[in-house]
Amino acid sequence: MKVSVVKNILEANDRIAQENRAIFDEKNLLVFNLMSSPGAGKTSLLEKTIVALKDDVKMGVIEGDIQSSQDAERIAEKGVPAVQINTGGACHLDGNMIRDTFKEFDFDSLDLLVVENVGNLVCPAEFKVGEDFKVMILSVTEGEDKPAKYPLMFHESKVLLINKIDLLPYVDCSVERIREEALKVNPDLKIFEISCKTGEGLDTWCDWLKGELKTKA
Amino acid sequence: MKVSVVKNILEANDRIAQENRAIFDEKNLLVFNLMSSPGAGKTSLLEKTIVALKDDVKMGVIEGDIQSSQDAERIAEKGVPAVQINTGGACHLDGNMIRDTFKEFDFDSLDLLVVENVGNLVCPAEFKVGEDFKVMILSVTEGEDKPAKYPLMFHESKVLLINKIDLLPYVDCSVERIREEALKVNPDLKIFEISCKTGEGLDTWCDWLKGELKTKA
Repeated sequence: MKVSVVKNILEANDRIAQENRAIFDEKNLLVFNLMSSPGAGKTSLLEKTIVALKDDVKMGVIEGDIQSSQDAERIAEKGVPAVQINTGGACHLDGNMIRDTFKEFDFDSLDLLVVENVGNLVCPAEFKVGEDFKVMILSVTEGEDKPAKYPLMFHESKVLLINKIDLLPYVDCSVERIREEALKVNPDLKIFEISCKTGEGLDTWCDWLKGELKTKA
Repeated sequence: MKVSVVKNILEANDRIAQENRAIFDEKNLLVFNLMSSPGAGKTSLLEKTIVALKDDVKMGVIEGDIQSSQDAERIAEKGVPAVQINTGGACHLDGNMIRDTFKEFDFDSLDLLVVENVGNLVCPAEFKVGEDFKVMILSVTEGEDKPAKYPLMFHESKVLLINKIDLLPYVDCSVERIREEALKVNPDLKIFEISCKTGEGLDTWCDWLKGELKTKA
């Protein structure tokens, strides 16, 4: 009974996500769904990516949080249209919530839409929102055992950004071990090592993203 | 409709949690529910707490993870009875899952039972498991904005452990700001600053916990 309720919710969400995706495709809009634990650096990554791509890419952002509008304010300060969704308790975004933001955007004027999900390494991976692909961030402070313990998000993501590599000298964590463990769960995972604080590795990520934008345009 | 399903699930869980609690009380067993984001240091805290209290306190641990038994193995290595629950996808523990572990423990021989929840700053706060109180960990690497963005867990917890203070020189984070923001959400929160790596602050936490154990015994 409980299982069938959950299955119905996921199936209904998949249908809505497909409809969203059709709208994005019609507008040649690349969309990625950005996920991570709380505090791994999703908003910082977006701030840095906006600045790096501002001459080449017209970007919009949907911010998902249980409460508060701090993240949308941070993004709007960078001169990018940003819409905040407050889930009011729900631990993930779903297709309907994303649909409700469409009226706030002019998709014809955008190349890229980023959906920053609620900080949660579990539930967001289950709910498509209409994205072309999922990007996840893992901070080196979270440890090497996370792919084995939270496999779904690693399995569903196209890209893994290993963030806060500037902290590597101070934590007991090997990036090589993270890579190995993540690739065990998803051998196709594209992995970038970055520091949103020092900027290290961000050019490689931005170049890759520009390549994806060309494919979609 | 969706809301009433969720409400029924929570009410049913509260009933089971109350039954668990009655069993714990009858055995004078102190139980706390330990919650945090992935990688904030729940298992490390337990390892350190077990070593510090090993002459005074007989402890058992229930480990909750979506998958893997790494955490229960880490705890068992410290000589403490540990039972691993694999939720198989679910993002939190509930009263029933805890009940299912009772046959694995001899409660008469224990003073303290710790339930280490799935790493998730959202959902575990909604589901009681029969605990006396909730303890949460926030790592300084997660940032100062977490109490405002994930208020329920801060609101429901009796204790906030601010962990990884050894990393403070290397991150943009003020412990004072975390304290202020957390106390805005829950003015009764008992806050300890700790480093599971260097051991700083752990004696104060352990002394407080021994006080709670005396009250329950």
